[in-house]
Amino acid sequence: MSDPIITLTTDFGTSDHLVASMKGVILNINPAARLVDLNHGVAPCDILDGALSIANCYRYFPPRTIHVVVVDPGVGTQRRPLLVSAEKQYFVAPDNGVLSLIYERESCTVRHISAEHYFLNPVSPTFHGRDIFAPTAAWLAKAFQTEAFGPEIADFVRFTMPKAKPAGQSVKGVVLRVDAFGNLMTNLTAEDVPAAMAASGEIKLAVNGKEVKKMVLTFGLGAPGEPVALFGSAGFLEIAVNRGNAARTLGVNRGAEVTLDLA
Amino acid sequence: MSDPIITLTTDFGTSDHLVASMKGVILNINPAARLVDLNHGVAPCDILDGALSIANCYRYFPPRTIHVVVVDPGVGTQRRPLLVSAEKQYFVAPDNGVLSLIYERESCTVRHISAEHYFLNPVSPTFHGRDIFAPTAAWLAKAFQTEAFGPEIADFVRFTMPKAKPAGQSVKGVVLRVDAFGNLMTNLTAEDVPAAMAASGEIKLAVNGKEVKKMVLTFGLGAPGEPVALFGSAGFLEIAVNRGNAARTLGVNRGAEVTLDLA
Amino acid sequence: MSDPIITLTTDFGTSDHLVASMKGVILNINPAARLVDLNHGVAPCDILDGALSIANCYRYFPPRTIHVVVVDPGVGTQRRPLLVSAEKQYFVAPDNGVLSLIYERESCTVRHISAEHYFLNPVSPTFHGRDIFAPTAAWLAKAFQTEAFGPEIADFVRFTMPKAKPAGQSVKGVVLRVDAFGNLMTNLTAEDVPAAMAASGEIKLAVNGKEVKKMVLTFGLGAPGEPVALFGSAGFLEIAVNRGNAARTLGVNRGAEVTLDLA
Repeated sequence: MSDPIITLTTDFGTSDHLVASMKGVILNINPAARLVDLNHGVAPCDILDGALSIANCYRYFPPRTIHVVVVDPGVGTQRRPLLVSAEKQYFVAPDNGVLSLIYERESCTVRHISAEHYFLNPVSPTFHGRDIFAPTAAWLAKAFQTEAFGPEIADFVRFTMPKAKPAGQSVKGVVLRVDAFGNLMTNLTAEDVPAAMAASGEIKLAVNGKEVKKMVLTFGLGAPGEPVALFGSAGFLEIAVNRGNAARTLGVNRGAEVTLDLA
Repeated sequence: MSDPIITLTTDFGTSDHLVASMKGVILNINPAARLVDLNHGVAPCDILDGALSIANCYRYFPPRTIHVVVVDPGVGTQRRPLLVSAEKQYFVAPDNGVLSLIYERESCTVRHISAEHYFLNPVSPTFHGRDIFAPTAAWLAKAFQTEAFGPEIADFVRFTMPKAKPAGQSVKGVVLRVDAFGNLMTNLTAEDVPAAMAASGEIKLAVNGKEVKKMVLTFGLGAPGEPVALFGSAGFLEIAVNRGNAARTLGVNRGAEVTLDLA
Repeated sequence: MSDPIITLTTDFGTSDHLVASMKGVILNINPAARLVDLNHGVAPCDILDGALSIANCYRYFPPRTIHVVVVDPGVGTQRRPLLVSAEKQYFVAPDNGVLSLIYERESCTVRHISAEHYFLNPVSPTFHGRDIFAPTAAWLAKAFQTEAFGPEIADFVRFTMPKAKPAGQSVKGVVLRVDAFGNLMTNLTAEDVPAAMAASGEIKLAVNGKEVKKMVLTFGLGAPGEPVALFGSAGFLEIAVNRGNAARTLGVNRGAEVTLDLA
């Protein structure tokens, strides 16, 4: 069997010792672990951003991958640490909803990690990534005995993704995130955009008082400088500018409202 | 034989699921692959920046390394995906010139990746990094049978690096990039700077109406605050400020013109 | 025995070929090495920031880990390259004090790396990370024969961490760094804060003309928007804002003075 894979998703950034400490803890317990950095630039304390980040990539990983997801504003409070077994993979994360999209897409067994002998000792009240989540993943990767870590629970925290909503002759959505290119990922999906409209190449999408009129298959089919709509690789409607930056061109950021005109 | 090495260079940043998805795809196909992050901070859609990034480091890697380079503004359009065999290493990238400096320095066989059974299915029109380039690298790393991926081609896209140009009693160059220290990497090389001048420690380099007068061997030999010129580790003339930031001190950025006075 | 672990800490950022080149050199010499990125966002040329980064995480790593720490404003000058054997781990770094906190906490043998046959040839005057430190780590990871790399020395550079100082009825400290959340890590430790005060939950901490009045165990116990003090996971007193950004709320940055009122 190949070496176990442990991935890391956090909002810690990579300018100090935080992620580094988690890596050390994992390798110290399980030197065979293959560490994979997924994303340490989750918006600070932003559970939705963390949820989207892991949900948009986990399914590409091999069976038995263990994903550690630490976006944890409630660290050290009553919120529980969780070990989640999905159909083929594992997730270790705080019980704050950051795995909501995993629960939505997978059949999951959720455990409250309570077997303290796996934790670092003492456990710092401010850094469970290092003291609880990293050691749990490292020990789990030895024998994959999830039941050793704590009892199954049913009352874990989950939220529903903010969905686009019909409003008269239109659908109102929101910009979920802006990527490195300035592309705006909205929460509209193929269910919200009539297939005929998508196929026609014409759309009426209002954002920040401006209008996006063209629907294309990919970035390079927009005229340079012109905002266009397209379905991105994660299944959401995105607004982009070919060789430009849609966020800057349209003057919008995360959270901006988007209105699709169906008339 | 040791585990195959696959490196990743992209302009995706590391604040979302894009790079993460590529890693998942590679490990799912080839769990033995050793992933190495080279640079995910290539300037967005900037093919020259990507070309410089990979060209300045590939030769340090061991034989059989596979370099995946995804700076791909034309994703989903007619531009072809390429698999390039250099003398000892492999490159997987879009056919947009991002490997131009590799073609310049290595004897290469260039193939159009057309064997679709290696691709993810379906292939998204907006994310070939995940759906074409990552799986190609992962499958290649199993048996290194390049001919299985598609036919050799000769009409691949290549550009010539913008070279410094003589202009009367001077040479005109340009700032290619600014690094994390604020050092300005220009396109002037040892061929553009007379050896006697370089050895004398005196130089006349004009940039943004300011003058750089001193040529040194390394950063710490400049007086604090004073802009100096030196040959950087990639072979280009750089402008730096000892314990300072040349880009801020001189008020210039990428693309700024640099004039070397030969008189 | 498992594959050797080599970690990398630099101030190079990750937007070019610098870190990438070091990785290539290591893997070319020692393809079995497991590379672990610790932190490439050390503040440029900031030896104290680098010293804190490695000191706050090294002890979590397994025995025999080799830590490469390149914050090296004096590259190419007379400053020596060092190989340091601590009780269980190894450090490769320039002799400029970046390992000061390791010397303080571990019993160390310090060697001047002088065995030039391990270096890349030629050695660039501006990039010893690639040409000296990376190859040293890669060769060391083959047989762990430290004495082969050069003679023991005693006159290596070390500095003392700036400590908080009593000043009448108060203690004056400083903000050492700001993390990704905007939390302010000060140089005050549990020795500077009377235990009774820490336990009481009340504190009087002045920073930039503002006052922090509450001491809590963890971030989530502060009222939203309210600056609070707590002991962070690295043992230092930190100032944080629950689901906010203390640096922005208080208008301070690294280097700001902090006064703890003991009256």
